[in-house]
Amino acid sequence: MSKVPKYKIKSRIWITTDEGTFLGAGRITLLEAIETYGSISKAAKSMKMSYKKAWGLVNSINSQSKEPIVRPITGGKNGGGSSVSEAGKKAILLFKKLDEENRMLLDEKNKNLDF
Amino acid sequence: MSKVPKYKIKSRIWITTDEGTFLGAGRITLLEAIETYGSISKAAKSMKMSYKKAWGLVNSINSQSKEPIVRPITGGKNGGGSSVSEAGKKAILLFKKLDEENRMLLDEKNKNLDF
Repeated sequence: MSKVPKYKIKSRIWITTDEGTFLGAGRITLLEAIETYGSISKAAKSMKMSYKKAWGLVNSINSQSKEPIVRPITGGKNGGGSSVSEAGKKAILLFKKLDEENRMLLDEKNKNLDF
Repeated sequence: MSKVPKYKIKSRIWITTDEGTFLGAGRITLLEAIETYGSISKAAKSMKMSYKKAWGLVNSINSQSKEPIVRPITGGKNGGGSSVSEAGKKAILLFKKLDEENRMLLDEKNKNLDF
């Protein structure tokens, strides 16, 4: 090829337990949407995901954590919606931190890449 | 849940240039199969991949590296086959090393994971 290409290492991380995937990029996006919209169905709609699929993901996430990550909002005018718990907010931040740290580590290696 | 789950960070890396993906797990598997079988078509068959798809991947890889990664075997009884060049063998090793290093770094973080 005529010019030397600029190589870049890309990465994707996800967290598993014995049950399978616990958190990954898509699940984090869903959790953030639930935080934004206060509802699993609205969050699902915003991602063009079926409610059934979103509910299954939320169920899978909750079943693999010690404390619920998503929980129902009870009472008040938003009764019936769902919110991301404090444990869930911490989980989102931790996932993003791990992902970002990983990217930064890999980015440092880009300059030495040669093929 | 009844028992505390064991969390594990999994990762996948791939290398891109401005043209798109240069190397990823699937492309590395294809290169290794070409090394094994000495032929793009046999390598493709071993992976249940169409020859057209394998040829497209090889072409994409070669067009993004300074030296050819896969090249035709000329002459001899294997004339007509393909082999992985020295540059290609180095690329395979480098990719696997980067992937392994990344996994090891992430594995160290598993013990501190808690959700």
